[in-house]
Amino acid sequence: MSSTAGKPITCKAAVAWEAAKPLTLETIEVAPPRAGEVRVKVEYTGLCHTDYYTLSGNDPEGAFPSVLGHEGAGYVESVGEGVTNVKEGDSVILLYTAECKECKFCKSGKTNLCQRVRATQGQGVMPDGTKRFTCKGKELGHFMGTSCFSQYTVVSQYSLVAVDPKAAQDKTCLLGCGVTTGYGAATKTAKITEGSTVAVFGVGCVGLAVIDGAVASKAGKIIAVDTNDGKESWAKKFGATDFVNPSKLGEQSIVDKLVEMTDGGLDYTFDCTGNVKVMRSALEACHKGWGISTVIGVAAAGQEISTRPFQLVTGRKWQGSAFGGVKGRSELPGLVDKYLNKQFRVDDYITHSQDLDHINQGFDDMKKGECIRCVVKMQ
Amino acid sequence: MSSTAGKPITCKAAVAWEAAKPLTLETIEVAPPRAGEVRVKVEYTGLCHTDYYTLSGNDPEGAFPSVLGHEGAGYVESVGEGVTNVKEGDSVILLYTAECKECKFCKSGKTNLCQRVRATQGQGVMPDGTKRFTCKGKELGHFMGTSCFSQYTVVSQYSLVAVDPKAAQDKTCLLGCGVTTGYGAATKTAKITEGSTVAVFGVGCVGLAVIDGAVASKAGKIIAVDTNDGKESWAKKFGATDFVNPSKLGEQSIVDKLVEMTDGGLDYTFDCTGNVKVMRSALEACHKGWGISTVIGVAAAGQEISTRPFQLVTGRKWQGSAFGGVKGRSELPGLVDKYLNKQFRVDDYITHSQDLDHINQGFDDMKKGECIRCVVKMQ
Repeated sequence: MSSTAGKPITCKAAVAWEAAKPLTLETIEVAPPRAGEVRVKVEYTGLCHTDYYTLSGNDPEGAFPSVLGHEGAGYVESVGEGVTNVKEGDSVILLYTAECKECKFCKSGKTNLCQRVRATQGQGVMPDGTKRFTCKGKELGHFMGTSCFSQYTVVSQYSLVAVDPKAAQDKTCLLGCGVTTGYGAATKTAKITEGSTVAVFGVGCVGLAVIDGAVASKAGKIIAVDTNDGKESWAKKFGATDFVNPSKLGEQSIVDKLVEMTDGGLDYTFDCTGNVKVMRSALEACHKGWGISTVIGVAAAGQEISTRPFQLVTGRKWQGSAFGGVKGRSELPGLVDKYLNKQFRVDDYITHSQDLDHINQGFDDMKKGECIRCVVKMQ
Repeated sequence: MSSTAGKPITCKAAVAWEAAKPLTLETIEVAPPRAGEVRVKVEYTGLCHTDYYTLSGNDPEGAFPSVLGHEGAGYVESVGEGVTNVKEGDSVILLYTAECKECKFCKSGKTNLCQRVRATQGQGVMPDGTKRFTCKGKELGHFMGTSCFSQYTVVSQYSLVAVDPKAAQDKTCLLGCGVTTGYGAATKTAKITEGSTVAVFGVGCVGLAVIDGAVASKAGKIIAVDTNDGKESWAKKFGATDFVNPSKLGEQSIVDKLVEMTDGGLDYTFDCTGNVKVMRSALEACHKGWGISTVIGVAAAGQEISTRPFQLVTGRKWQGSAFGGVKGRSELPGLVDKYLNKQFRVDDYITHSQDLDHINQGFDDMKKGECIRCVVKMQ
């Protein structure tokens, strides 16, 4: 048993004290895991726009002070009472989409949206309603059930999965969100078929992962759409066959352009922007009769999508995908194996890295067009 | 060969001279069918809200003067050059959703939305761009490729199907639109599964046909929703297990009420109202993770549906259905056989009947809550 098991751990964390302010490096205390919980030494964490969105104060679920971060990998430091699915020393990926394997949702066979810890996760507390982080006498909230902007975190036993320790954690951390989200949306949610036409709106980490999933599904034409011309080479590196910059079409709309390029519209489209107007274009660029548009991006609070219902009545489908439809505990070990077998790329997404002390610089990097993913070394 | 073959036929028709005016009974001349066309003696036609919508002038595709009507059955009077799929004397159902079996859409295996005659159908002309109806020296437009408010009509060979002549045409006419649309939406588009929960918004002909399709699919709970309490007995006669009048819920929204009744929401919902606000409620009453909402109703021009994209990202799907996803030529003969074998109801929808001279009275009947379908005897 770890020498720290059962005791509080003092470590560094990047704390979000209040909205719209940079994170602050602090020394915090992390309580031991209670029954059904696991304490994890976080080695690497990716920075995702969702962390930044919550930090900006625009997320209605965002609470402060808290420890953000949800794309992490590390080692199990100790486990609480009754935990059997992981053990001390396991190499794990943290899961913001939990999987208990027992709730109505997990058992339905139709969704990955386990609801076991959903309510407390949304409130920024552990499933028993309490918190494990303390700093300067104040409790800090949890975030997305993971809080990996701390060197140690405590999560529900349903919010992590052990994977092959041969896979480097500075890579596997990306499977905790962006890469899995895009790849799964293409292969599991939309189930892209061989020879089909695909358009991907937004060429960031998620969009590139959709492209990779479309390539794996043997799509015939993969059109990447982004207002940043610098993304063309990225998209093509991942396997896109075409690139369109919608801001350079003059009078022609992006929908008309895509319909023209595909003899009537696309079999599959994906929004990876979070922009509700783009979501509409993605739907309306679908082929009449069968086109399926999948919303992946997270829209700002209160924003709504709309279209004429005729778009649906004439055969287009509008759906969404969270964490790529992937069940983390059941499926991530297999994805890690695919990565180790070189059937699935992860390394190529990483353009920037920082250490924990410079995590705010990482967010500044993220906002630049040339950043796909920035990975933060936590220890 | 019919004695009238190759010659113009003079007959009665209810002509829509202009928008928002009652139909006018006229004596018109119907030209013989040209190559690829069929002239049909219309025996019965159902009155549908879509006819009324176009007559009201609100349909942007509506053109006047024209011969409306799209839910008809009759006999083939004569066929034009090259027509082989039907012959003189066949008992036929007219198809506003054509099926050519050869276009990209027909061959896709994914949709019933044949596009072979779509463009000219929308323009109110035959596929060769001309018209077959003349009255008082003026040409009258065609409508939905069928125009069955005339004792004789001319349609494309792709816009009708021969069925078992044992089936009475005052019943089979309803398979040309309402009954097939609802039944198909339930069984073919949504593919309702055994034991599932279903909500149907709007208890008219289409809504009742959805209920019948849900019963045939062995749904576990079928909730009918209508603001007219008089529809409760209708819904239950067709097999609904529950009825909710959303205008009598006080503070509670219909979405909250349905979610409460179904432990989290419905597996399948259907909008049969054409009201875009109802379409939103139908989506949002779906169960997180897997609920599928199918839009059937036709919204007024320019109206849009909207929702928060989070509804989709958390696993709800929004789709539509036209003519129930049914391919008319391939599938209606089988549906007629099911009707003859008493596996499928049609007679029960008919609450009113009129003769052609009183077709305007039929529209007045239709607007009453107690009318499900009014069938007009054309001869």
